Amino acid sequence: MSLIVQKFGGSSVQSTERIKKVAEHIVATHQAGHDVVVVVSAMGDTTDDLLDLATDVTATPPPRELDMLLSAGERISNALMAMAIEALGTPARSFSGAQAGIRTAATAGRARITEVAPDRVRQTLDRGAIAVVAGFQGVHRDEAGDSTVTTLGRGGSDTTAVVLAVALKADLCEIYTDVDGVYTADPRIVPDARLMEHVSYDIMRELAVSGAKVLAPRSVEYAARHGIPMRVRSSYNAEPGTMVSGSVGPLSAEYSAVAGVAHDASKAKITLCGVPAGSPELTARILQVVAGIEAELHYSVLDASWAVQGRSDISLVLPAQDGPPVMQALRQASAELGFEDLRYAERIGKLSLIGSSLLSQPGVLATCCETLAAAGVHLETISTSDMRFTALCPADQLTDAVRAWHAAFGLGAPELATVHAGTGR
Amino acid sequence: MSLIVQKFGGSSVQSTERIKKVAEHIVATHQAGHDVVVVVSAMGDTTDDLLDLATDVTATPPPRELDMLLSAGERISNALMAMAIEALGTPARSFSGAQAGIRTAATAGRARITEVAPDRVRQTLDRGAIAVVAGFQGVHRDEAGDSTVTTLGRGGSDTTAVVLAVALKADLCEIYTDVDGVYTADPRIVPDARLMEHVSYDIMRELAVSGAKVLAPRSVEYAARHGIPMRVRSSYNAEPGTMVSGSVGPLSAEYSAVAGVAHDASKAKITLCGVPAGSPELTARILQVVAGIEAELHYSVLDASWAVQGRSDISLVLPAQDGPPVMQALRQASAELGFEDLRYAERIGKLSLIGSSLLSQPGVLATCCETLAAAGVHLETISTSDMRFTALCPADQLTDAVRAWHAAFGLGAPELATVHAGTGR
Repeated sequence: MSLIVQKFGGSSVQSTERIKKVAEHIVATHQAGHDVVVVVSAMGDTTDDLLDLATDVTATPPPRELDMLLSAGERISNALMAMAIEALGTPARSFSGAQAGIRTAATAGRARITEVAPDRVRQTLDRGAIAVVAGFQGVHRDEAGDSTVTTLGRGGSDTTAVVLAVALKADLCEIYTDVDGVYTADPRIVPDARLMEHVSYDIMRELAVSGAKVLAPRSVEYAARHGIPMRVRSSYNAEPGTMVSGSVGPLSAEYSAVAGVAHDASKAKITLCGVPAGSPELTARILQVVAGIEAELHYSVLDASWAVQGRSDISLVLPAQDGPPVMQALRQASAELGFEDLRYAERIGKLSLIGSSLLSQPGVLATCCETLAAAGVHLETISTSDMRFTALCPADQLTDAVRAWHAAFGLGAPELATVHAGTGR
Repeated sequence: MSLIVQKFGGSSVQSTERIKKVAEHIVATHQAGHDVVVVVSAMGDTTDDLLDLATDVTATPPPRELDMLLSAGERISNALMAMAIEALGTPARSFSGAQAGIRTAATAGRARITEVAPDRVRQTLDRGAIAVVAGFQGVHRDEAGDSTVTTLGRGGSDTTAVVLAVALKADLCEIYTDVDGVYTADPRIVPDARLMEHVSYDIMRELAVSGAKVLAPRSVEYAARHGIPMRVRSSYNAEPGTMVSGSVGPLSAEYSAVAGVAHDASKAKITLCGVPAGSPELTARILQVVAGIEAELHYSVLDASWAVQGRSDISLVLPAQDGPPVMQALRQASAELGFEDLRYAERIGKLSLIGSSLLSQPGVLATCCETLAAAGVHLETISTSDMRFTALCPADQLTDAVRAWHAAFGLGAPELATVHAGTGR
């Protein structure tokens, strides 16, 4: 008997029909002799609908109130899931994030988890019942003992699932979604993208950071640190999906050093033109100006790709919604930063080749550049690290670029993989 | 400067437009120099929508999970209201029932309040901010210190408002709704029904118990016990509405001993025919059978009118949705209870004349019966107490019956009141 945490995303619980289907699956796992902890996201578009309500009321909702508002979404799906499980004759109990012992720092909207104390979840399992926990939310207790609802930011339900798995010493953390697992590229734009049976934490984290939406980067890092195996699979079928763990899976050799291509079409680009000869102090000052605006922007800066083009241009790639406020902040600081011009591209294509020891194989970078040129893609910049090459291109050429890389490294059909992967050596 | 609790019902906060309008009113009260505590119900039909979701999932949702589900509705309206107030430049803070210190017994769905400890609400007021509290919900803490979300049952947000008003020693508890106040009858069916400027706790409670939906009976009782004045008024205009308090208002003399007519079209009737000569033991046993089924039914029994027709028929009037399960329970106990037949009327008309010292004025009862006969209404039974005469009639004659009583006691136009009230003396 093992302990399994099963997390179901919004599309997996988007209707009461889906909730009942998912409940059957959960009960089957329980009846197979496992302890089961369920983590649910809000139903379908609930979170977006709640955000729309907030935006209707005010352009600048206070973060604390936004957290109170958004946390309602998971409480709804959570209670409905517990009802659906009980309706199948298996005891279940729902818990809010606070009740499940997810304690966080005070920061609203992207609260850092400070402690996980799932005593009540454990007691529920001990008496043979299924524990159902609202994802994405926690609680902050101040010195006076007063509690405030917090949310964990994007991908927060994945994080809830993993931290509970770690705290409960679970054997497996399953992430159920509307795709069959982790692919070598987004199958919606690369038809021959291949499902990976197994992927390492490192590769998975790089894929997630680079735009693969199937798992939140933070949850992968946490699982890696504590050695909890994760499985990404579909809630619409019984396929095993993709195992994410520390060990290298049996198939990884097939695609050599290159694992997959991730892309991100949600970025904007700001270019500071004619910056005085690039000094680290100035770069740091630009970062400070950008990071000083908003909580969410802090993340965008961490996520940004910086590239010095020539002596005097600096480009900043960031989530598109953060573009306008960052532009405003940079304009206000223009005298201090001393740039000549500020350019803004509302959308930029960003694609990343993910693999291991990429820098020790010079052929890979050459293939990246040649392939894009052959596909007619204008390569704006390419930045490299040992696990990831990230290129920027015009937004309307992004699909072509992803397909070109995916084909060049033979990531699709296994029989081609050996041949093409060779070009990277 | 005084402390005012303002409660807004679902129709008052049914859209973000309405929430913004209401926020303006709240801020105006605050700017007039008052401390303001706001209690909100769920937006519009949210509670019904959530109940529909639960019913989609299972015919018998566990009460604990239902409470977790339903409590989400008030958290949403609550957070949105705090945002709307803050958007107007006035500091506000939202609180769940638990955070506002509404502590209850364990019973889900209709939890009894055991303690009100609104320390955080008080602190919020002390620093000049408006406290916004989610109505209808509380929290139960068990011996281990574990907390469970509870809801307070029908009219729960009114109760939240009044218990907070009492605990905070408020000067006034205002209940905002979509009608202008308390009328002598439902103005939708009695066009000349008159708005009461003032009504006593006693009369208000009887009106509420008898079907006037404008206030929850429990909240009126609690306000009466602690002497907190209530005001029922519209959130759509600035009219003063109806004051509910212990003292007798200036206009009460006009309508003599009779204050108003309440009606209730939501009841069903069960008749046990041919019951062995009515003994108190048997009546008690029937009550036990009925009350033993469900939490909600307990309330229906408390609310029921019993009438012995002849020697051997007993009628039970109860909320229509409780009819089928009670019928089932009675059938199962038929051998023990020994009735010959069980009859069920899905809908029965129930109307109540509310006033004071009704029994000391024999003319009132005579007028009640004569008026219904003259209006062609079949009077099934009439039961009397000093503050209320309650008659049953066919459901399709209820409107005629209400209009007949309202006219007979001159409750509409003041100049007629004196004349007609005379018939009741």
